[in-house]
Amino acid sequence: MVELRRDPVVERWITIPRERAASIEGLFPGKQEVSRGACPFCPTAMHEREIYSIKDDQGRWSVLVVPDLRPILEMEGTLERRAKGIYDGMSGVGAHEIVIETREHNQSWATMAADQLGLVLRAYRDRSSQLRGDKRFRAIFMAKNYGGMASRFSHPHSHVLALPIVPRTLVEEVQGSEDYFQYKERCVWCDVKEQELAKSERTVALTDRFLVHTPYASRYPFELNVMPFRHVADFASSTDEEIADLGGCLRTTFEIVKNRLHDPSYSMIIHSVPLRNASEHSYHWHIEIRPQLTSLAGFEWGTGFFTNPIPPEVAAQHLRG
Amino acid sequence: MVELRRDPVVERWITIPRERAASIEGLFPGKQEVSRGACPFCPTAMHEREIYSIKDDQGRWSVLVVPDLRPILEMEGTLERRAKGIYDGMSGVGAHEIVIETREHNQSWATMAADQLGLVLRAYRDRSSQLRGDKRFRAIFMAKNYGGMASRFSHPHSHVLALPIVPRTLVEEVQGSEDYFQYKERCVWCDVKEQELAKSERTVALTDRFLVHTPYASRYPFELNVMPFRHVADFASSTDEEIADLGGCLRTTFEIVKNRLHDPSYSMIIHSVPLRNASEHSYHWHIEIRPQLTSLAGFEWGTGFFTNPIPPEVAAQHLRG
Repeated sequence: MVELRRDPVVERWITIPRERAASIEGLFPGKQEVSRGACPFCPTAMHEREIYSIKDDQGRWSVLVVPDLRPILEMEGTLERRAKGIYDGMSGVGAHEIVIETREHNQSWATMAADQLGLVLRAYRDRSSQLRGDKRFRAIFMAKNYGGMASRFSHPHSHVLALPIVPRTLVEEVQGSEDYFQYKERCVWCDVKEQELAKSERTVALTDRFLVHTPYASRYPFELNVMPFRHVADFASSTDEEIADLGGCLRTTFEIVKNRLHDPSYSMIIHSVPLRNASEHSYHWHIEIRPQLTSLAGFEWGTGFFTNPIPPEVAAQHLRG
Repeated sequence: MVELRRDPVVERWITIPRERAASIEGLFPGKQEVSRGACPFCPTAMHEREIYSIKDDQGRWSVLVVPDLRPILEMEGTLERRAKGIYDGMSGVGAHEIVIETREHNQSWATMAADQLGLVLRAYRDRSSQLRGDKRFRAIFMAKNYGGMASRFSHPHSHVLALPIVPRTLVEEVQGSEDYFQYKERCVWCDVKEQELAKSERTVALTDRFLVHTPYASRYPFELNVMPFRHVADFASSTDEEIADLGGCLRTTFEIVKNRLHDPSYSMIIHSVPLRNASEHSYHWHIEIRPQLTSLAGFEWGTGFFTNPIPPEVAAQHLRG
């Protein structure tokens, strides 16, 4: 049983995966679980529970989506809400899927063909569309962790997550962009795009349909934001042309990241409007990328106030080379 | 010059310390700056710019507060607000001080005498009271990073920070506890305390004046919360009796953390009501402690949704031994 719990003070949810509760001793340095033996994502592995695939000419999968074997949320079950005194909880219902991005073990988004990356994005879009139909879910994320600091597995893969709550970061983005719209009758992300294109001091890459830039208020050194030109709230509404263009755009971006930043570990997430939310006019889907360069803890976790040692204009200049 | 920048969408501030901007190459693995030579916090080091001290019988400092040599905010200057197109910025005015907690290099909060820890807390309270008088500041934090994963220096020390903005985490706590008060006419933290004392399944330590427990919605394995019994919004209003009791309470807590969790790196922060804020009735100061055990990135940074592999009830039981 997986359990969702809400903080009694702030709008913050956590999940406790009870049945696969970690061993306490396994948490300590030098005792972390290391994946051994054959790669579970290579074509030779068993993939009995296919959820979705894109096939090649020979009928073999090129991109394969399977359930995560250790999901942080469970697909089966109804959404039950419960109180424990003053505390609020919920059953941990949700989807947690793995996208196996290619048959080739030794690839990454910096080396993969742009077309293959386009297929991965098409899988994201299709799974996202399909999961949106499930009335239990309120937010869908596609996320990728790359490199030894971020992921236990090296075969190219990413995650699709459908949550029964709207998590805090998305609540705040929806609220912030709605406030801006009420005040200005414009989308804040569209305004950001216009201002960035006009000055381009923070621009890292540009295609016909996408802008890649280091945000004005970057939290982390070399943080990147990828934004479609077209105002669209939901990633699942991307056109075929946008998906193809984005494949090339991300291929270029991650090649730059690899070459200019010594192939760092990174995390990537796609932010899309919450399901059945009335903010289509004010929200604008986008991708956030965080290279993992700084390891020392700061005050960020306890305050939400970030210290970034590299100004984003300097970061963009370095990335442009 | 230090610059503060606000995210255009969400209420999130970052600071860019321009003059001590990090070298880009220094960010990469194996190239991080390591502190060399003599410890800058030992009594033999130069401490010319004393801000505050508590002296022993022989007139030597027992606890010493000095400016941070690489402050994330600058004490001098006026608070200037400026727009850059749609973006909002501010001059990076604030206080960043180092509390040198003892003359002895090889101590920690797990080994230090409770009385000495009480002196550290008295220094926190006194500096906090003094900084509250500065009209430029809106929030004050005391924070400690311990261990190789969290800090570059091993001599016992901590930070005092005064910020010209209320950072996001505190904004949310103030709003959340005010909402609860409006609804129930009670302090949410007092209600948490009552419920935890009644069940005690998450209790780790208890004194006459403080409760230490693993929060119901813990974000991290073995996260801890220290809360005063008395309803008081501002840490600076702590009585001498509370400060002395808290010294013993934290000594016990960190001895448990060291012994039961293999002396982990950790971060600690004191959350207190923002300055000149009218939420004295609904806010309740407290301490948050995060042992750094899990190193893999999750979805937390991109969603604000946390996966905690260890239920807090299991964590509390393990800590109680």
